[in-house]
Amino acid sequence: MSDAGFHGVFPYLVTPVDDGGTIKKDVLAKLCDDLINRGVHGLTPLGSTGEFAYLNNQQRRRVIEIVLESAGGRVPVVAGVASTTISDAVSQARDYEKLGCDGILAILESYFPVSDDGIYSYFEAIARAVSIPIVLYTNPNFQRSDLSVATIDKLSHVNNIRYIKDASNNTGRLLSIINRVDGRMQVFSASAHIPACVMLIGGVGWMAGPACLIPEQSVRLFDLCRLGKWAEAMNFQRQLWGLSQAFAKYNLAACIKGGLELQGYPVGAALAPQTPLSSEGIAEVKEALCSIGAL
Amino acid sequence: MSDAGFHGVFPYLVTPVDDGGTIKKDVLAKLCDDLINRGVHGLTPLGSTGEFAYLNNQQRRRVIEIVLESAGGRVPVVAGVASTTISDAVSQARDYEKLGCDGILAILESYFPVSDDGIYSYFEAIARAVSIPIVLYTNPNFQRSDLSVATIDKLSHVNNIRYIKDASNNTGRLLSIINRVDGRMQVFSASAHIPACVMLIGGVGWMAGPACLIPEQSVRLFDLCRLGKWAEAMNFQRQLWGLSQAFAKYNLAACIKGGLELQGYPVGAALAPQTPLSSEGIAEVKEALCSIGAL
Amino acid sequence: MSDAGFHGVFPYLVTPVDDGGTIKKDVLAKLCDDLINRGVHGLTPLGSTGEFAYLNNQQRRRVIEIVLESAGGRVPVVAGVASTTISDAVSQARDYEKLGCDGILAILESYFPVSDDGIYSYFEAIARAVSIPIVLYTNPNFQRSDLSVATIDKLSHVNNIRYIKDASNNTGRLLSIINRVDGRMQVFSASAHIPACVMLIGGVGWMAGPACLIPEQSVRLFDLCRLGKWAEAMNFQRQLWGLSQAFAKYNLAACIKGGLELQGYPVGAALAPQTPLSSEGIAEVKEALCSIGAL
Amino acid sequence: MSDAGFHGVFPYLVTPVDDGGTIKKDVLAKLCDDLINRGVHGLTPLGSTGEFAYLNNQQRRRVIEIVLESAGGRVPVVAGVASTTISDAVSQARDYEKLGCDGILAILESYFPVSDDGIYSYFEAIARAVSIPIVLYTNPNFQRSDLSVATIDKLSHVNNIRYIKDASNNTGRLLSIINRVDGRMQVFSASAHIPACVMLIGGVGWMAGPACLIPEQSVRLFDLCRLGKWAEAMNFQRQLWGLSQAFAKYNLAACIKGGLELQGYPVGAALAPQTPLSSEGIAEVKEALCSIGAL
Repeated sequence: MSDAGFHGVFPYLVTPVDDGGTIKKDVLAKLCDDLINRGVHGLTPLGSTGEFAYLNNQQRRRVIEIVLESAGGRVPVVAGVASTTISDAVSQARDYEKLGCDGILAILESYFPVSDDGIYSYFEAIARAVSIPIVLYTNPNFQRSDLSVATIDKLSHVNNIRYIKDASNNTGRLLSIINRVDGRMQVFSASAHIPACVMLIGGVGWMAGPACLIPEQSVRLFDLCRLGKWAEAMNFQRQLWGLSQAFAKYNLAACIKGGLELQGYPVGAALAPQTPLSSEGIAEVKEALCSIGAL
Repeated sequence: MSDAGFHGVFPYLVTPVDDGGTIKKDVLAKLCDDLINRGVHGLTPLGSTGEFAYLNNQQRRRVIEIVLESAGGRVPVVAGVASTTISDAVSQARDYEKLGCDGILAILESYFPVSDDGIYSYFEAIARAVSIPIVLYTNPNFQRSDLSVATIDKLSHVNNIRYIKDASNNTGRLLSIINRVDGRMQVFSASAHIPACVMLIGGVGWMAGPACLIPEQSVRLFDLCRLGKWAEAMNFQRQLWGLSQAFAKYNLAACIKGGLELQGYPVGAALAPQTPLSSEGIAEVKEALCSIGAL
Repeated sequence: MSDAGFHGVFPYLVTPVDDGGTIKKDVLAKLCDDLINRGVHGLTPLGSTGEFAYLNNQQRRRVIEIVLESAGGRVPVVAGVASTTISDAVSQARDYEKLGCDGILAILESYFPVSDDGIYSYFEAIARAVSIPIVLYTNPNFQRSDLSVATIDKLSHVNNIRYIKDASNNTGRLLSIINRVDGRMQVFSASAHIPACVMLIGGVGWMAGPACLIPEQSVRLFDLCRLGKWAEAMNFQRQLWGLSQAFAKYNLAACIKGGLELQGYPVGAALAPQTPLSSEGIAEVKEALCSIGAL
Repeated sequence: MSDAGFHGVFPYLVTPVDDGGTIKKDVLAKLCDDLINRGVHGLTPLGSTGEFAYLNNQQRRRVIEIVLESAGGRVPVVAGVASTTISDAVSQARDYEKLGCDGILAILESYFPVSDDGIYSYFEAIARAVSIPIVLYTNPNFQRSDLSVATIDKLSHVNNIRYIKDASNNTGRLLSIINRVDGRMQVFSASAHIPACVMLIGGVGWMAGPACLIPEQSVRLFDLCRLGKWAEAMNFQRQLWGLSQAFAKYNLAACIKGGLELQGYPVGAALAPQTPLSSEGIAEVKEALCSIGAL
């Protein structure tokens, strides 16, 4: 799989785990296959929605193996690498490259606050350790660190750091980044940003949990944006928005897992002590999916 | 001035005050006149940028008188009403309506947290006290209260509550509001939201401090959006963005006052103990204005 | 009244206001008289609990007049001065000194963030404007500015800045301040700090809303602390703690006003849109007062 | 080692790790031995200061083995168990009990917000999995979850949940907990709380990083408190406070590791991308230690 230009719809895959802690291969593989058949442009295992923070390194590695095997080179696989230490992150990244991943989604976990220099050295070390493209990831809602625009700019000069997925809901910040990195880095939208708006300001696609539930609609929206049919795109985006609202309101993993269960995928619940999607949440996701024609 | 549909570019006016606390009539009147001649669609005195929080009620009233006289009915004047108590807010609103204002921008100041019921009753009381249209205002960055989407929905059923200006930077929240209020209320963008994006999702214009500095460019951007020339609009928006970035980075009032001083308006500095725009800020605003052709 | 050493129990007075906005003189005067007769060491009108943020300057001035008249020089009156601008704060402070106040509790309100230099100049200007002692006030829970330990240290070198009331709940910060200012400034506790602990670390008393409801008990606790009977003091403090908990849980003004209504003072409710103390809150305050023997 | 009443000074041990990721046994063992010889009442490996968030499960287990061996039953060892999932936490706790630990310090890590029910079930599951006493740990500064007083009360009814270490700086909250749990649970202070104050309100000791650097002084302070010599205790506490201030100001692990290096323990720096204690931090720690006589 060439890395020439990640773009389009990359669903954040959930991670189905059985009670003994084993990754449910069949369920995950079928989800990957179905998503590819419905046109998604890539797969992103081990993002926030993929519950990386709730899996040990053995479980994470198994997820990558299953996704790569299921994808079979049809679409790029961009694997989440997350750690609090540089040494562990570098080790994960090297391992995932060897397994055959097409890119790394690099995530910094932290417990104590990290200085900008520490943040820079973490992401730079991951990039230097592999030869595949890096997508920087930042989610100020769930992480204790955040990437300043100045640090992003500095990282954009590292050769294989080529993309950023910023999961804040501050779309103006994305425009500031786009203006600043001047083409050295491309921007992926999060679901919270209104993907059609991010495409308008210059984004190349989106990485988002809801795309697991509405792959065809996501691809249609992307195509409308790429054709510059902005009014039509926004009209369609408005119809999809109820699902993004539910996703923002409930636990991300519980929400997507709950929706997939409704669609017949036995992915199970978010890992304890996270609580399963509430009955109110199930009703809201159900209504959003039905109104979109995805259930 | 009819209230049939506020829309377009409404600059948040700064408030020039001399050392003795007197509003500088000539400076403010000339700014209003120039903005109207350059095509803005309305004027909004006593917003955040207008330093309402730093003026007593006599000073605020004087600002309204000057702006109304200068506008002379050419464009609608939507006056900021802000208080911690219902009784004071109602008194201000009635007074401004009698003076001739075309609308009220209703702002809730608070010291202790306010319940949703308290928030609702504050805005409802202002609306009931006057017959002109109300624009709800919420700025979670500077106020201690925020309007939930459910409270906004409830307020949209009050007859003359017809607009909302949400100064968060969460554009997705605006889409959720638009979907929820179903046409009962129209949305104005803040500068932090990327106005062109808000127009795309269904907004009717923007109320923003930077429009004091770049009125013609703001109007041109609005016209491009209204014509549905989204790619062209966004291309132009990108050029204007440096000014919005500076505005978000520095004290709002100090920033716009600093920019107006550069353009020859002797508006003075933000009121002490606020500090004047730093030399670094002046340089950044200057560069932004020069690159836009506004200096 | 000499200013030689404010110390002991200073209740934050509530502000009873009738529907027309007039301060209820009889109610406020009786409360002051009763508190003095029960042994409090001073009175503090126009603190947070006094709803300064909900009163205009005329109402505030009237409060001061009533309290001064009722106190009649029996205990010092330390009046709250609060504003967003230096000019208004200085004007209030001079006025209150002329009226006969013994000290000023200086409070900085802000809407936009204020720099450390701006904070310093605000408090310094108030101090320079009067000759009576200044108590610095900071409440990070309700204000948008906070005083750094470095700024407090700098202010402690201004001649008549002699006390600080820090309403955070971080008792360690108080010890850091005490160590830093080296006797140039004395510390008053807030109710949230456990007054007996603050006395142990070197405080000189407390300024707190609950002292309106339990003046005799507060004075007894202060006396135990001053005698160094720490175990006995803490045992008694523990019994009083339920009231402080309720005070921290509910709207401060609504809580103390609700408690005073239970004790027979017709002080009314907190000013709208604040909501009156809930029935759950009334029950909790009632139980706390009964268990202390204050109802 | 009997579990009959953990009390006194429990240093949070740092974790010395070499470049290859191996725990430096000699350094850690010597530190434990020295601390015990200087009178500490227990040892707490794998707290925040122990960088649990930066170690994998193999490294954590090795730390426990070394500490247990060095302690040799002379003082109780209370091991930190931290995870995002119940299954992993239970597995760690069972393992540490088998290795010989005397108690478990139970820590909930989270990425997504956790409901109160989820929080309860996490701690309850750990407690049910072992027969040794549990110390609940909560640090709202570094964790994404916090224990409400109601949840703490509910957990206090689980048989072997017997202690709590609350690392907020809100001492009033500790008094509320003590009043609420009514003897079912004992409270340990954090360094940020002023240990002498917590002893006064009813605490049984403290678990804190700085005790690694000043074990004898910490024990002396504890003894003064236990004898009820409060004035003398506070006078001594005041001298020790500079070290707690530095600890609160800098990265906890970097600060204690930096101080131990000054004292001749080659513990190394905090794990990358954390940055080593700055030269300013080293100077501040050095001064604090010298003034105490600990260097």
